[in-house]
Amino acid sequence: MSSKKEINEDLVNERRKCNFNIQEVTHIIDGGVENTLQRKKIEDVALNGGASLDDVPEECMNLRERYENALRKSCVYANILRNELLEITGIENFGTPVIRRTGDAFFKDISPFMLHLGMFVPTIMGQCTAEQQGIWLPKALDMQIIGAYAQTELGHGTFIRGLETTATYDPKTKEFILYSPTITSYKWWAGGLGRTANHCIVVAQLYTQGKCHGVHPFIVQIRDLDTHMPLPGIKVGEIGPRMGFNTADNGFLGFNHFRIPRMNMMMKNAQVLEDGTYVKVARHGKLTYGTMVFVRVTLVNEASFNLSKAVTIAVRYSAVRRQSELRPGSAEPQILDYPTQQHKLFICIATAHAFQLTANWLWHTFTVVQAEMRKGNIDTLPELHALSSCLKAVSTSDAAACIEQCRFACGGHGYMMSSNLPYLYSFVAATRTYEGDYTVLLLQTARYLVKAWEQAEAKKIVTPTVAYLNRCFDTNEKVAWTNSPEGIIKSFQAIAAGKISLCVKNIRQRIKTGMDYEDAWLMTTVQLVSAAEAHCRSMILDTYWNEMQRLTKTSSDNVKMVLYQLTTLYLVYWALEKSGDLLRYTSITEGDIDLLQKEYEDLLVKIRPNAVGLVDAFDLRDEILRSTLGSYDGRVYERLMEEVQKNPLNKVPVDPSFQKYLKPFMKSKI
Amino acid sequence: MSSKKEINEDLVNERRKCNFNIQEVTHIIDGGVENTLQRKKIEDVALNGGASLDDVPEECMNLRERYENALRKSCVYANILRNELLEITGIENFGTPVIRRTGDAFFKDISPFMLHLGMFVPTIMGQCTAEQQGIWLPKALDMQIIGAYAQTELGHGTFIRGLETTATYDPKTKEFILYSPTITSYKWWAGGLGRTANHCIVVAQLYTQGKCHGVHPFIVQIRDLDTHMPLPGIKVGEIGPRMGFNTADNGFLGFNHFRIPRMNMMMKNAQVLEDGTYVKVARHGKLTYGTMVFVRVTLVNEASFNLSKAVTIAVRYSAVRRQSELRPGSAEPQILDYPTQQHKLFICIATAHAFQLTANWLWHTFTVVQAEMRKGNIDTLPELHALSSCLKAVSTSDAAACIEQCRFACGGHGYMMSSNLPYLYSFVAATRTYEGDYTVLLLQTARYLVKAWEQAEAKKIVTPTVAYLNRCFDTNEKVAWTNSPEGIIKSFQAIAAGKISLCVKNIRQRIKTGMDYEDAWLMTTVQLVSAAEAHCRSMILDTYWNEMQRLTKTSSDNVKMVLYQLTTLYLVYWALEKSGDLLRYTSITEGDIDLLQKEYEDLLVKIRPNAVGLVDAFDLRDEILRSTLGSYDGRVYERLMEEVQKNPLNKVPVDPSFQKYLKPFMKSKI
Repeated sequence: MSSKKEINEDLVNERRKCNFNIQEVTHIIDGGVENTLQRKKIEDVALNGGASLDDVPEECMNLRERYENALRKSCVYANILRNELLEITGIENFGTPVIRRTGDAFFKDISPFMLHLGMFVPTIMGQCTAEQQGIWLPKALDMQIIGAYAQTELGHGTFIRGLETTATYDPKTKEFILYSPTITSYKWWAGGLGRTANHCIVVAQLYTQGKCHGVHPFIVQIRDLDTHMPLPGIKVGEIGPRMGFNTADNGFLGFNHFRIPRMNMMMKNAQVLEDGTYVKVARHGKLTYGTMVFVRVTLVNEASFNLSKAVTIAVRYSAVRRQSELRPGSAEPQILDYPTQQHKLFICIATAHAFQLTANWLWHTFTVVQAEMRKGNIDTLPELHALSSCLKAVSTSDAAACIEQCRFACGGHGYMMSSNLPYLYSFVAATRTYEGDYTVLLLQTARYLVKAWEQAEAKKIVTPTVAYLNRCFDTNEKVAWTNSPEGIIKSFQAIAAGKISLCVKNIRQRIKTGMDYEDAWLMTTVQLVSAAEAHCRSMILDTYWNEMQRLTKTSSDNVKMVLYQLTTLYLVYWALEKSGDLLRYTSITEGDIDLLQKEYEDLLVKIRPNAVGLVDAFDLRDEILRSTLGSYDGRVYERLMEEVQKNPLNKVPVDPSFQKYLKPFMKSKI
Repeated sequence: MSSKKEINEDLVNERRKCNFNIQEVTHIIDGGVENTLQRKKIEDVALNGGASLDDVPEECMNLRERYENALRKSCVYANILRNELLEITGIENFGTPVIRRTGDAFFKDISPFMLHLGMFVPTIMGQCTAEQQGIWLPKALDMQIIGAYAQTELGHGTFIRGLETTATYDPKTKEFILYSPTITSYKWWAGGLGRTANHCIVVAQLYTQGKCHGVHPFIVQIRDLDTHMPLPGIKVGEIGPRMGFNTADNGFLGFNHFRIPRMNMMMKNAQVLEDGTYVKVARHGKLTYGTMVFVRVTLVNEASFNLSKAVTIAVRYSAVRRQSELRPGSAEPQILDYPTQQHKLFICIATAHAFQLTANWLWHTFTVVQAEMRKGNIDTLPELHALSSCLKAVSTSDAAACIEQCRFACGGHGYMMSSNLPYLYSFVAATRTYEGDYTVLLLQTARYLVKAWEQAEAKKIVTPTVAYLNRCFDTNEKVAWTNSPEGIIKSFQAIAAGKISLCVKNIRQRIKTGMDYEDAWLMTTVQLVSAAEAHCRSMILDTYWNEMQRLTKTSSDNVKMVLYQLTTLYLVYWALEKSGDLLRYTSITEGDIDLLQKEYEDLLVKIRPNAVGLVDAFDLRDEILRSTLGSYDGRVYERLMEEVQKNPLNKVPVDPSFQKYLKPFMKSKI
């Protein structure tokens, strides 16, 4: 039992064994030493005061207390953000991951203000005229009004054209009348809407002069600013407990012929004039891709960040936890010494790196493209859109699976909420669904891939990320297998090309049997999802490898070495996972696969001594990890015990229900 | 919007389309028409009175309220069980799944009495002398005392020999002194222990006459029967919130030199005499396998049962939910019409069947073996133990993954606790860990497989479930692929044999390089886990296919047809999942794989019209499903709205935190 200040001896030993410079790796993950310094400064300012900490563990509070606590801390955090953090980063960077991670220290679940800053404010910026912005933006930025964003309805999600809420223009009063005609038309899921927001952006079908013009956004005040009572004609509340996001205050909203002024329609892209005339403001539809790509890159970032938390927790715990015996009579080893445990965990470290670097690369590419866009060149936009779609799908899905793998690797204790692992899983698992469901997004990428295939078939040059399709057309033979990073990447491109080709063949065959294109497409969707996933994997492998090469050019030898081991582990892991596809689409042999397996197992051995160093390099403060199992000092068992003492249930030796139910029951026996 | 009594029109249509006799399938799943009748009778008695229902949804209560509610219902349910249900089944069947499923209607999480009935009582039966049973059993059965079972410690789980709690015999007072020497020695996780139990079976290291005799079980009274206060020297409480099992009242327990009478040692298998002499009562160690196999079969049953709930919810919801458009301008289709959705769901129906039939078969086989055991023949016990180990591991893991797949298939609404899907996932995910962790159990099976391989190599005949190893030794060539159920099963056996063979080869090579056997084994564990999984899959495929053939011999043609489609779907699904292994270990070609894919997609089309009928055949009452999305009448959106009205948070239009925090914050702006 170590004293408060001590660091667990096993972790001390692990850190002693580590043979590379941890800070160097931290700088690579942060994107440079300046970024690390800025991040640390921000974390010091936000967290050193202790405002993020709770006396009672969040999971021990009831739902109302949790909400109140989150609301209280949201106010505290908003003040720190405005008064201090944005001074450091500049106000234009309020959405940067470096700031967001301090938010994770404040909210084990999430802040009810999140969508005010994340959606309400940006939508005002993007969808309002300058005049409207002048009205709403200062109040919103100053948080005199607090907004939510309500698009999804109880019966409508993915398919926005199917939304039922109506906004009908009444030229007599120059107002829009908002109406929820059915149960299924109730707005549902909007974060911050349940009890917090007094305003809301509402996406509704616009009717004017007897005609529907499709969905448009409106700003609606829903509660009295002074009393916070819902306004007459507004039905608003909490949608009920969720697997996660329980302090996000997700709400529902219904309208009973609720009237708003004409100018509350967000009029940058379309307007309704006083007399009810609908005017579409000409605008390039592709420009909205920007927000979409930004949101998706953010989600990939978050997937990587939350996975880095999970694997930090699991690796440190595995260094502290000792169990069983390797040979009769010997001492219990650290569970990190079991290859099966290394197999579960090291791939998670590599995956966190892979997604981080791919997200950075994608965002950088996109900013270059945006510059092009301003010159009128939008050729590469569809490519980036396809890329961001599949990357969001695969990274959130993989990260959720990896986090759950980390949780399983912590055995029973990983099941405790105080480990934070269940929170991390429920958070990332949600991102697999929202902002574009996994399957829906992969099918969007598949549309792009099939088009690219047809172009390659017609001997046209395709865009860079699918350039392998041109190459694959040049050969009729299986790709020659070589066991090298480049060889594995090339093989994965061959797999993607092979799967896309098969889909195209199957679609065409189905059309031959009399189906129309859409039916043939539909019947091929199971395979199309698989093809898009394969494309995405080839892209991630390629980007991770190239970016890590680039970023470690000037690194010290040992940093180069350990990061090379990790990227190679990632490549070999996926080659083994997809060995069936490799057997099918490349010349790989059984012997080659056995060599890969051997190489994989050797890499586990090589990475083992540096495992704790590698997770330390994520440089996640204990406040951000929020885990009894994962803290820097490894005081796992002590923390579990301390947590028990903070639990209000344990303040009373006998629960009142004993007198009420248990005692009468025990005594009533005949 | 349908009235309360109406059934959703889409579900009415689905049921009209169903072409087979649903009741016939129900009887097959129940194991015969008599079982169905008994089950329905039990469900009527337990549930028709409405005692299982809650006015406020369980997830809306706080943790203490949830516990109190679970305790209250535990008393109600215990009375129903004792006074009515056991009259129907006979008292000897109190653990039967038919009764357990009514418990699921009472407890969304679980009853704090569960381990009293599930572990405390059976351990008294199994570990006490007749004299001791006479003391404890009547009180326990009558619930005048309520017990828990405490084995796992904060720092010790899998490795029982590592437990730290000591029980030291003091011949002067003829007592045992229980002591927790470290934090890590605290008992941790025991269900019912936190606030409910007044007695506990404690597993501790027995010391007498200065010598340690290893772990033994003791009965310990921990609370005063009248006041329920923890006795002096006892530290007991709740371990804290968990991902699931939050009403299971999992507790911790520490001893400060706590004394119990000598006769509280459970003395059936070993005794300490008054003078402190330790006496081991000779007994066949293998007999304890019985309980272990029983517990594992129960967990496989539960995995299947909970998966059947999840897929019932997801299929019905997918029939009610309409989204997007298949071609421009057409109406929104039921999402069940998307092949990608069918791909996610139909395999879950088949998986629930596969696990159910395999569990039944295993249990039946075991009871036959038990009869043999009584005659002294224990030859097949290790085989059954190996089988139950891998089956528990794979079925809980697959079922958890399938349940999560069902949840994802329900989009955002699957994330609502009221869907019940998050509960089902967190429940089954836990069973992957407890009673033998996934990896640990597969490695136990692997030990058996490697031994069997060595026997086959020595030309000895091996036990039936690994008989394929004998066959695989007879041929040096890849197994000839044939696309038939038997062909697929044979191919999976070839995969298992191939993987085991490779493991043996690698172990031997590692020994040649100088490692000892245990190190060579350890370094091969990643592959050994994979080999054990492959063996298990071949066994499940084989059993599911054969048992379904047997059980449908006298079925009507359409029932035969749809169940044949489902078993074939399962076989083909796994063949496609493991096509890499098939390419490696059989003569399958690319063209064969394409045919399998085509067959798989055709099966989805064939099963589609019967999908709702197939989940209806699980015959799960709404009280057991406990889901807003999955009820028989399909009133999905209405139920979600009703749930919102039951939520205490929505009874107050303005949360008190507005005046406390939000208003001051909004007004404080400069």
